[in-house]
Parts: sequence; structure tokens; C-alpha cells
Amino acid sequence: MERPVISFLTDFGPDSAAAICRGVMLSIARDAQIVDISHSVRKYAIADGAYLLSIALPWMPVGVHVAVVDPGVGTARRPIAIRTTRGDVLIGPDNGLLVSPADALGGIAEVRVIENRALMLPETSSTFHGRDIFAPVAANLAIGGRWVDVGPAVDPSSLVRLGVAEPVARDGGLDSAVLYVDSFGNLRLAGVPDDLHRAIGELTPRRELEVEFGADNGTGAFRERTQWARTFGDIPLGAPLVYEDSFGHLAYADNQGNVAARLKVATGRPVRIRPL
Amino acid sequence: MERPVISFLTDFGPDSAAAICRGVMLSIARDAQIVDISHSVRKYAIADGAYLLSIALPWMPVGVHVAVVDPGVGTARRPIAIRTTRGDVLIGPDNGLLVSPADALGGIAEVRVIENRALMLPETSSTFHGRDIFAPVAANLAIGGRWVDVGPAVDPSSLVRLGVAEPVARDGGLDSAVLYVDSFGNLRLAGVPDDLHRAIGELTPRRELEVEFGADNGTGAFRERTQWARTFGDIPLGAPLVYEDSFGHLAYADNQGNVAARLKVATGRPVRIRPL
Amino acid sequence: MERPVISFLTDFGPDSAAAICRGVMLSIARDAQIVDISHSVRKYAIADGAYLLSIALPWMPVGVHVAVVDPGVGTARRPIAIRTTRGDVLIGPDNGLLVSPADALGGIAEVRVIENRALMLPETSSTFHGRDIFAPVAANLAIGGRWVDVGPAVDPSSLVRLGVAEPVARDGGLDSAVLYVDSFGNLRLAGVPDDLHRAIGELTPRRELEVEFGADNGTGAFRERTQWARTFGDIPLGAPLVYEDSFGHLAYADNQGNVAARLKVATGRPVRIRPL
Repeated sequence: MERPVISFLTDFGPDSAAAICRGVMLSIARDAQIVDISHSVRKYAIADGAYLLSIALPWMPVGVHVAVVDPGVGTARRPIAIRTTRGDVLIGPDNGLLVSPADALGGIAEVRVIENRALMLPETSSTFHGRDIFAPVAANLAIGGRWVDVGPAVDPSSLVRLGVAEPVARDGGLDSAVLYVDSFGNLRLAGVPDDLHRAIGELTPRRELEVEFGADNGTGAFRERTQWARTFGDIPLGAPLVYEDSFGHLAYADNQGNVAARLKVATGRPVRIRPL
Repeated sequence: MERPVISFLTDFGPDSAAAICRGVMLSIARDAQIVDISHSVRKYAIADGAYLLSIALPWMPVGVHVAVVDPGVGTARRPIAIRTTRGDVLIGPDNGLLVSPADALGGIAEVRVIENRALMLPETSSTFHGRDIFAPVAANLAIGGRWVDVGPAVDPSSLVRLGVAEPVARDGGLDSAVLYVDSFGNLRLAGVPDDLHRAIGELTPRRELEVEFGADNGTGAFRERTQWARTFGDIPLGAPLVYEDSFGHLAYADNQGNVAARLKVATGRPVRIRPL
Repeated sequence: MERPVISFLTDFGPDSAAAICRGVMLSIARDAQIVDISHSVRKYAIADGAYLLSIALPWMPVGVHVAVVDPGVGTARRPIAIRTTRGDVLIGPDNGLLVSPADALGGIAEVRVIENRALMLPETSSTFHGRDIFAPVAANLAIGGRWVDVGPAVDPSSLVRLGVAEPVARDGGLDSAVLYVDSFGNLRLAGVPDDLHRAIGELTPRRELEVEFGADNGTGAFRERTQWARTFGDIPLGAPLVYEDSFGHLAYADNQGNVAARLKVATGRPVRIRPL
């Protein structure tokens, strides 16, 4: 039998909390391959967690995926399990964290609320459902526990969903927004190259563009010149480029620099891309 | 045969030192499940390492647990192995790091000084016993090496122990202290809810409290109003709460905030909790 | 059959990029032991990555080692595979990252340019060869793929090599340089104790030395008194020492301090060690 794969993402940081969940999972599923996706998600940033899962899970083997960014732990928010059309099971809080990742795995096949205490630890705390509920339920499913035993099925339309910025073509440019700032400082933007193509015409290498960052939280709007490029090394060191990132989305970067730090730009910032 | 579990905690940080120890362990125990507990323990902070191990190890499968926070590496401090009543073996330096974790696993059954060079790497350096002694001894035990072959048994009372703050009921309040600051900035405090209950009476939800931080290292004492709560989401965003953490201990946090950063409070700070 | 070992080093940081590569590898080699060496290599710092690999790989089981610090991704730089005399295979970009690590594994036996698309993912992006080329090629080799199928053999002399500082005895002292700053702030220096011995005579414990840091990037030269010691705990808390690090090289540290932060010294800084 193949070893079960359990992927695992949290905002728990470098303390022992993620390891405690791994210990719980291995106590149930000794042979599991636990794949840590990240435990450095910005604290409480549900949208960041959803973004990272969305781009990562399609590259994982079909399996069980546990995710915990859970500022509402211990309140009325539901613990849920989502079965995807690809055959995965996603486990975590019903706060929007799991919906776009499930979409990235082919869409939601079924949703169940986690209620079966036999799959949880004997005692459940108010502040650490990762350890007491999500990890043991995931491990029990990974070793062959039955999906229907998790808890009652609920309507997928009852799930909490996050608002996600959508690209809009307008006045010869494309309105987008920063969806995520990665650890290189690269800005992952709403939309794909086809959106930009439709808005401004063909994206030829080195085509000159202007990027305008909208006003945000007391910081004024500003713009800068840039260009379309295929990869970082095609332009001078330190220069900015708009490019198709490795997930097929639009992105903005400095070649070997950190554009988010240079421009002091964060997630959510409106971005407009125009021809020059 | 079940795959052996080896847990692993150090203050080695993000360099390759922890990976080198993993390589040594896998060279001996190719099939081991190595569970990294944390390698981001504050440098040289033996008490932080002991705290993290104490809360994490009870959730691990019974196994071998290696821990290295070892400012005295290469000096006369002894390398030790502790067998717990639960059946685990703890491996590391005799500097207090392993004693409270062994207590959390049911207590010390036997202690041996690591002396058998056949279980170590052929050459041992003066500054990296994690690689040369602790990792290979742990891996050799994990694959079935005999406990009695580690080295001579010694009296558990000979172990170096850390002073740990104890809660004290006094004048209608509870004297406690910050044991650990986690990566959320939450303050893990000495004592359990029963200690506080005995000192100030019943802990009803939203009961108003005052927390006083004692003077420390040139920083003056100060106090603030707070409340008892069951979980973060039960109080307003950003508000502070005293609560029972998921290990059954007292803790102090800001709901979705970082109270340690807000108050500039660190490990060891005296804390007094009073009714309002 | 033994589980295949794949070691993995990148500058990808705490986002999900390293996990995505792990997912790709496990999709091909479900039973692999993936050993993360580090994903916190300073961004774009090829020499840092080469240093960390050089000291880590000799402690790994013989296996496949993937490394990605790749500012030239998507440009003309070649993707390469190096077979070492020890029997390992190193996979990564031809930018100098893999050469000194291969030397540390006994030297280069053969080099091939990675060209066989059957070993890669079906689609290859311009900016994430870790996922699309290096990870799948490594996993395919780990499960028994044939070395000769990787791509055409090329002359090892065609590989890009990094300039590395060499120690030079001069005027009764040793000219060295900072090769790497580890997470303790310890300075890993060019040269071994024998080099220093030949330059200044016998290295007796507590022998007094002077360390001079050369001018660098607008920072002036300066010197300080120190001593030769066997390990940190042999000298007073906070005092600096020159010592043989656990890889047999010269190093400079503060006992339980961070000498790189205290002196504001970074990789590449010239260092001269003299008797006092």
C-alpha cells in the first residue's frame, strides 16, 4: 500500500505547535508522508493561507490536506471537511481558507461538518483545534477512515467565502490588485496575461508599461515605468518587470530585488497596468 | 515493524546544522520518521527549549527525542540519556534542557551518561555534539540499540535542573511569571486556572481582572485591565484576555494581536493577576 | 529496497515554493525521504548556497541532491546534473552552486546537461525550474531512472565556477576572509588551523591573537584582541574566540553572542589574523 500523504499549512510559526499536530497525526498514521506547505503564513491572514494553498495543492499527490489559519477558533465557526472532485479531502475551519484551494483541485464535490468525536482527540480545547480536531480527523481519514463518518453533509453554498479581487479592463488598461507578496518581495497580482492582453494588446517582450499603485491606508497613489518580460534575467539587475508567474498569473518584481520593500506595497493594494 | 520516530529540537536556526544531524540520523536509521519540533529556539535559551519540549513531547509517539540547546558544548557538561516511565528516551546535554520534558512524559525512570563511543561518530568535534554524539546515539537507539549500552547509569538527582517560576497566591491575587512568549506574542504564564481560582475565586466568563507586570531590567512596573475568557474570539478584536491555554496553563493574549510586542514584555517577567 | 534519499536546498524562503517541489517529488517518488537542508539561503546568494551544501552533503546518505539558488532561471544558463565519485547526483543550475559541493563529495565523476523532457514536468515555466525541471528529474533518478538518460555529457571544465577566497600566509599573519555568517552570527573563515599554524606558530589554548577586519564597502578597517580556544565555553561569556569549527575550518565567534551583529561584518569581508 502506498504511504498516505497529508499536507499541512498553518500560521503557527516556529514554535512547537505545528510539530504537536505532526505528533498527533503520526500517532494515528505512523507511516504518513506529512508535507509541510508552510507554517509561516502571516498570523490570522486567512486570504494569504488560501492563496498559498491554492497554488500549492495542485502539485501535491491526491491526499488529505490540513490547513489552520483560525482566528475564530473555539467560537461558533464550524470545523469542516471538503471533498474535491480530484479526490482530495481538505480539513480546516469554515472561514474561507479552504474554498479557493478546493476550486484549484477541480471544485467541491461534497462538504461535511466535522462532528464525529470518535475521530478527534478525547479532549478538545477551546484554542487549539489544529491539534484536537483537524490533525486527528485528517490522520484518521488518511489511514482509511470513511468520509461519511466525518459528520453531516452540508450545502457547499453555506460555506464562508472570501472576497477575491478580480481584474477589470478599463480605459485601455487593466485594473488589478496585489493578491500576495511572496518572500522574494514579488507581487502576485489578480488576473492572467490574457486579461492584460485583452486590455492593452499584445505582450511583446520588453514592451514598455506603466504600473500605477492606488492610494491605500493613507499612502498616496504613485506610478512607475516598467516593461513586460518573460523572466527576471531578461532585464537589467534591479529593474522591475511585469511577467507571467509560474502559476500563470500576472506578477510584478524587481530582477534580484525586493519590489514590495522598495515600494512599501502590501497585499490588497490596487494596481493598474497601462501601456506607455 | 513500525518506523521509528525521532523528534528533534535545537536552537540551530535556518542554517544547515539541523539538516546535517538529520543526515547523520538517516545514515544510521534510514527509515526513521524524524519529527522536527523546532529549530528556532532562541539561541542559548535552555529554558525556552525545555518549555517547548515539555508541551510538545506528550503529543509525540513514544520514541527517541533529541534536543540540543547547548552553550556549554565541549566543556565538562555531560552528554546524557534519560529513559522516561512512558518508555521514551531523551538525548541531549545535561544543562536542564531535558528534565522538565522528562517529567511531562511521566517522570525519569533512569539516567545514563553517554560514553559509548561505538554509538557516536568516529570523530567528535568540540563544538557540534548534535552531529557527532546526540544524533548518532539517538539513531542507534531508534533502530534497536540497547539502552544499557549507552553508558553508565547515574543518579537522577545529579542532573542539572533549571529554576522554574511557581505561582503563589498572595493578598487576594496570584503571583505568576512569563514562562515563554510564543510566536503569536502570547504570554505563557506559570500556573494553571485552579491556582488562579483558589487565589481570586471563580473564573466566570468575562470576569474583569487586572494584570500587573513587575519591574524588570530597568523597565518599570505597570498594570492594565483585562478579563477572563474562554477563547480569543469571545472578546473584541485587539482586546487582551487571560485564558487557559491549550496545555491547561494560564496565558495572556491580545485577540488577533501580539501582546508581547505591544507591552514589550519578555520571558521571566513577573506577572500578578488580581480581581478588579 | 531502501527508501531513496533526496536532499533539498533553496533560497525559496517560507512561502509554499519549496513544498510545491516536495509535492512534485513525492508524486513521482512516493516513498522518498526528502531531507530539507535549508530553504532560508539568502536570496540569490549562490555562494552561500554552495557553502551550506559543501558542509552538509558529506553527512547525508549517498543520494540525489537538489539545489536551487537561481537568479538566472529561464535565461541561457544550463540546467545540469553532476555525478560525484561518492555516487551522489547533484541537480541544479550551472551557476557555480554545485561545484564545491561536488568537490566535498569526492569530486566530479561526470556532468550532464539536463535535456530529456521525459524526466521533466510536461510544461516548463520560465521562472520556476525547481518545480518543472530540477525536482522531477531528481525524483525520477531517485526511483531508478538512468543517469545516461538525463542529457548529453559535457566537459566538467565547462561548468561555471565561483571564485572562493583562499588563505595566504604573509608577514607573520594569515590573510583570510569571511566565507559565511551562520545564524549564530559566527564568522566562517577561509582556511584551516594548519594554515594559521604555519603562518604564526603553534595554536596553544588561550594564545592571544589580533583579528583585523579590512576596509569594505565604505566601512573602515578595524582590529580587536582575541584568543585561540577549543570551544565557546572555555572563555568568558561574551568574549570573542578564534577556533576550529566543526568542519575543520577557522572561525570567529563571541561566546553566547553574535559577533557578526556586534561588528557589523558580512560575507566577503577580508580578515587578517596575527599573534599579539
